[in-house]
Amino acid sequence: MRLGHASSLYPVTDILARDLDAADPLARFRDRFVIEDELIYLDGNSLGRLPLSTRERLHRAIGEWGTDLIRGWDRWITLSREVGDVLATGVLDATPGEVVLSDSTSVNLYKLAAAACAARPGRRVIVTDDDNFPTDRYILQGLVEARGMELRVLKTDIDLGVSAEAVREALDPDVALVSLSHVAYRSGAVADLPAITAAAHQAGALALWDLSHSAGAVRVPLRSAGADLAVGCTYKHLNGGPGAPAFLYVRADLQAELRQPIWGWFGQRDQFDMGVEYDPVESIDRFQVGTPPVLGAYAALEGARLTAEAGIDAVAAKGAALGAYAIELCDTWLAPYGVVVASPRADARRGAHVTLRHPRAWQLSQALRAAGVIPDFRTPDRLRLGFGALYTRFVDVYAGLARLRDILTADSHLAFPERHARVT
Amino acid sequence: MRLGHASSLYPVTDILARDLDAADPLARFRDRFVIEDELIYLDGNSLGRLPLSTRERLHRAIGEWGTDLIRGWDRWITLSREVGDVLATGVLDATPGEVVLSDSTSVNLYKLAAAACAARPGRRVIVTDDDNFPTDRYILQGLVEARGMELRVLKTDIDLGVSAEAVREALDPDVALVSLSHVAYRSGAVADLPAITAAAHQAGALALWDLSHSAGAVRVPLRSAGADLAVGCTYKHLNGGPGAPAFLYVRADLQAELRQPIWGWFGQRDQFDMGVEYDPVESIDRFQVGTPPVLGAYAALEGARLTAEAGIDAVAAKGAALGAYAIELCDTWLAPYGVVVASPRADARRGAHVTLRHPRAWQLSQALRAAGVIPDFRTPDRLRLGFGALYTRFVDVYAGLARLRDILTADSHLAFPERHARVT
Repeated sequence: MRLGHASSLYPVTDILARDLDAADPLARFRDRFVIEDELIYLDGNSLGRLPLSTRERLHRAIGEWGTDLIRGWDRWITLSREVGDVLATGVLDATPGEVVLSDSTSVNLYKLAAAACAARPGRRVIVTDDDNFPTDRYILQGLVEARGMELRVLKTDIDLGVSAEAVREALDPDVALVSLSHVAYRSGAVADLPAITAAAHQAGALALWDLSHSAGAVRVPLRSAGADLAVGCTYKHLNGGPGAPAFLYVRADLQAELRQPIWGWFGQRDQFDMGVEYDPVESIDRFQVGTPPVLGAYAALEGARLTAEAGIDAVAAKGAALGAYAIELCDTWLAPYGVVVASPRADARRGAHVTLRHPRAWQLSQALRAAGVIPDFRTPDRLRLGFGALYTRFVDVYAGLARLRDILTADSHLAFPERHARVT
Repeated sequence: MRLGHASSLYPVTDILARDLDAADPLARFRDRFVIEDELIYLDGNSLGRLPLSTRERLHRAIGEWGTDLIRGWDRWITLSREVGDVLATGVLDATPGEVVLSDSTSVNLYKLAAAACAARPGRRVIVTDDDNFPTDRYILQGLVEARGMELRVLKTDIDLGVSAEAVREALDPDVALVSLSHVAYRSGAVADLPAITAAAHQAGALALWDLSHSAGAVRVPLRSAGADLAVGCTYKHLNGGPGAPAFLYVRADLQAELRQPIWGWFGQRDQFDMGVEYDPVESIDRFQVGTPPVLGAYAALEGARLTAEAGIDAVAAKGAALGAYAIELCDTWLAPYGVVVASPRADARRGAHVTLRHPRAWQLSQALRAAGVIPDFRTPDRLRLGFGALYTRFVDVYAGLARLRDILTADSHLAFPERHARVT
């Protein structure tokens, strides 16, 4: 689906949006979610919506805890792998056995980054960029401090995202690991995962990708790029629910070589033999640690299945079309008010969200909430609009941006307090 | 409640058990759980039962995800602290602000053990014992290997548990940390937390306790012992559900001094300012890492509240009485068949489970399951009977052990395959 050019009425009415919705091959997926009001939800990249099947599965899982009790673990014990396999084959272009659900994204990043550094002894640099998500930067800061290593932080244009050239220039024989986000959390810019992975390999380093904003939003070419390592969350575009467990990916042929630092019993060979020495199993399970959260895992499973059912190519195409439509509306309606598109304009370079820049972005975000539209605010001056492809309609984009235009026209956002202003 | 001595009928009939149930001040709490069949559940120390209020709260939380979406985080963001405060004041003898829900027990042990070692630079030994839970031993093995330290593993009698004397003898100025379980996972033996903590302090070391089998089962004298650090799970005696998040405790005056190694954004000061440098907040929150699991946290909250409502002293007294009753029945009925009580006999030295030793413990556990009784098996030859004090009745203990006696009398367990035997 590519956005055609405007009819003579466009964008004064939502006729084009209605046409686009009518032609949307994923339109029927909206009925698979709990949507009980007229809210225009443009923050599915912070927390995705609740699928009907997830509500049903969670109610069932709660009941199974009540009746099956400890016997439930006969099934639950493999749940993290089951979700991993759905993600591998239906969402991430990986192979069954290369992905497992585990811990939080931050803990997974710590485990895999530490494992990568240990696999490149003597090399003392980790490369990242200053537009990487805060928790990623902090985790890497902690790692290099503990190990006497150095964090080489690239300066990235936060609208355009990190470039392969910049990474290439930062690489030398001292680099153990390159750790970046695949889709930038502010701009939505897509990093060139294949080129950066190839550059890292050429320098003898490993590459670790944070897929939090890309899993379920865009194609993630792990297999074709020969990607080494990745982590990501399931509560954004994968609709796994608040605080749902994260996932990690380790390429099959790297698994035996890598050792993560948190030696928990869920990574142990013959776990319930409870042997004396830690002896990690030879599979992706060696990157597991403690008892996995069963309810969160079921929610992640249903969410991942829904994306797999829709097909990641169709999901990515719709996310791109929604974003392109938002950019056109912004150019037409909002640019006169000083709103600037702060995301790449080329579909292939953008994930499933679009970020707008405006000095009063915080107040605009509050005014939008009051007007029944949920966007996200990101420091310092960004309004972030996320497009969950499985449930966002073109008419939602139209109406959301029309309300933003009306707010700007009436200056009604000025009635909301500035960020960090104390309300007495 | 102390177990009186048997009537003339005892233990041929369950009259005493019925009397004890009639006098049980916690009896009414059984009605607060989902119990829909005649199963005799003696494995609440592996996975506790589902409270009615938890089922209701989880259904509500799922609905709130559906309708509130990202706005739910206005409440959810403090949930880990809220649960921590209930645990601190109602379960653990700590102060609000000293406990927080976070990650898994294994990950928490890693964080706090690493923080403790960093706070004792130059000291290169961690003391633990060979009866500590496997994941604890593995986590510590990984830590000492990564840091060039040494793990000093005490040999502990697995029926009696670790002694303060043995720990004292292992201490010297090289010891950074003593890491032990408060209640032993096999025998249920209670370690002398105050004496061992005092001994560690005298040697200049810190002490880190795993409370997984004691939180919600026995009194945990953190405050009176001046305990440093603790971790534990919420899915056993706290009835938080399968894979519910774990908790960690750091004494208030230690919090500013300690730094854990996984620098996630939930430990960051002014988290949503997303600052450049990691700058951990000065509170227990600095030991948080990634986005907390909301459903699991609500379940942990309801479970913790239920124990707090019952009162930990009453809960501990009932657990001890159930155990004492089980030991009496075992001595009377099962000893002739070679079953040996492998737990301390003194109530004050035993948690809320009793372990029995028998060469065919695995087959006995399978025969019990087939007879409608759920025990637990633990290597190498242990049958573990857990007594969730809020829902286990004395008649359950009576009936469970009567069925075990009948199995032994009829040798019906011999019909079940031996452990690791392949069934074709």
